[in-house]
Amino acid sequence: MRYLITIEYFGKNYCGWQRQANKVSVQETLEGALAALYSQKIKLYGSGRTDSGVHALAQTAHFDAPDTIPAQRLHLALNRLLPADIRIKEAKKVSGDFHARYDTVEKTYIYKFYLSKIASPIRANTHGWLAPPIDIAKMQSACKQLIGTHDFKRFSATGSSVKTSVRTVYNAEIAQNGDELIFTITADGFLYNMVRIIAGTLAQIGKGKIAPKDIALLLQGDTAAKRGDTAPPQGLYLASVRY
Amino acid sequence: MRYLITIEYFGKNYCGWQRQANKVSVQETLEGALAALYSQKIKLYGSGRTDSGVHALAQTAHFDAPDTIPAQRLHLALNRLLPADIRIKEAKKVSGDFHARYDTVEKTYIYKFYLSKIASPIRANTHGWLAPPIDIAKMQSACKQLIGTHDFKRFSATGSSVKTSVRTVYNAEIAQNGDELIFTITADGFLYNMVRIIAGTLAQIGKGKIAPKDIALLLQGDTAAKRGDTAPPQGLYLASVRY
Repeated sequence: MRYLITIEYFGKNYCGWQRQANKVSVQETLEGALAALYSQKIKLYGSGRTDSGVHALAQTAHFDAPDTIPAQRLHLALNRLLPADIRIKEAKKVSGDFHARYDTVEKTYIYKFYLSKIASPIRANTHGWLAPPIDIAKMQSACKQLIGTHDFKRFSATGSSVKTSVRTVYNAEIAQNGDELIFTITADGFLYNMVRIIAGTLAQIGKGKIAPKDIALLLQGDTAAKRGDTAPPQGLYLASVRY
Repeated sequence: MRYLITIEYFGKNYCGWQRQANKVSVQETLEGALAALYSQKIKLYGSGRTDSGVHALAQTAHFDAPDTIPAQRLHLALNRLLPADIRIKEAKKVSGDFHARYDTVEKTYIYKFYLSKIASPIRANTHGWLAPPIDIAKMQSACKQLIGTHDFKRFSATGSSVKTSVRTVYNAEIAQNGDELIFTITADGFLYNMVRIIAGTLAQIGKGKIAPKDIALLLQGDTAAKRGDTAPPQGLYLASVRY
């Protein structure tokens, strides 16, 4: 039987989603719980990787296992075997040809910033930091330009080996909630470090160090146009995966 | 010269505000930074204690030190000497008879809950957990009864040695923000564990296990009336101290 699980995790103590030698990954931790539950080795297929320190509100993954535990109680059984920083929110049966990665239609990421003159200890593990003055309207204008089908090569880390760096962004927006700035982006897929590089570039646009119109140059692949630094992982959340 | 500092801290790694033998306190950590900055031992007087694991958005404290560093740069100099989970937000000169504890007029605490069927890893260090169904209107009705001058003995931990357990609550309210419930309470002072016992009692009222009218019985000192458990420390924030 094939199962699809939805997972929330706090990324601080993990090297990321993907198994790595001599490091603790979310995938390995979940596979450990699955092995304990089913008394056999079970391989987990995630919707995609998340980097070291990145969080997930709703990562998804599938696995094949014997039909011995009712799907509606599976998340409770697994949660008893997991550390407190990983929780299964839902488990359901899916068809045998479903694939958590290849059947993805769109994903949404959130990047959380807080605005403060002084670094905030309370937000240190959950947000990126923006020191005012910040021009939020400029950031919003930059967001609009991201929407559509573009080549996001300049917004990806070097060394990523993908066939194409063209992606379609369905929505990108910045919302203010008190002293928080929440950047939300939905696309058919994301390149390595893409959301963090976009978030870092938006931060520089908010600070007036990069012009909003430079987004267009970057999307044209202009190698002279400046992009921002990769924003730190603790502000990033994989928010949803749609099939 | 006497200085008043405003401090934000993430309480997870501390035994609380107050110095304790063989444990790491916020006070000791700050006194260490002050000693390094002024090259002499400096005693810090906080507005009051916070428990192990409790956070502060704006704890206050005073100390006496030589007038060698301009007040407007003092917070920056101290922040360079502090770990990332403690930050001075502001420092200012005050008169020599000012006292951070005895001159307090009112304090405000916030208790943050999140509502979710499954425990949330992302909120584990910053919120208390409430599993729905929760009747928020009942919690709001209970809050209103707390306002005024009452004997809060039943809302304090046993073993606290204070002259009187009568306190005046100026405001107490519950606000909903998405899947968050934020309890805010302002009073002329608080007893040991008072906010966490009130928060725990409000949680039981929201779950329908304690009636809102039992607040009145508890405020009358009724020893048969049931109160809730002490809510966990990670949801509690000392939000402001007014002089």
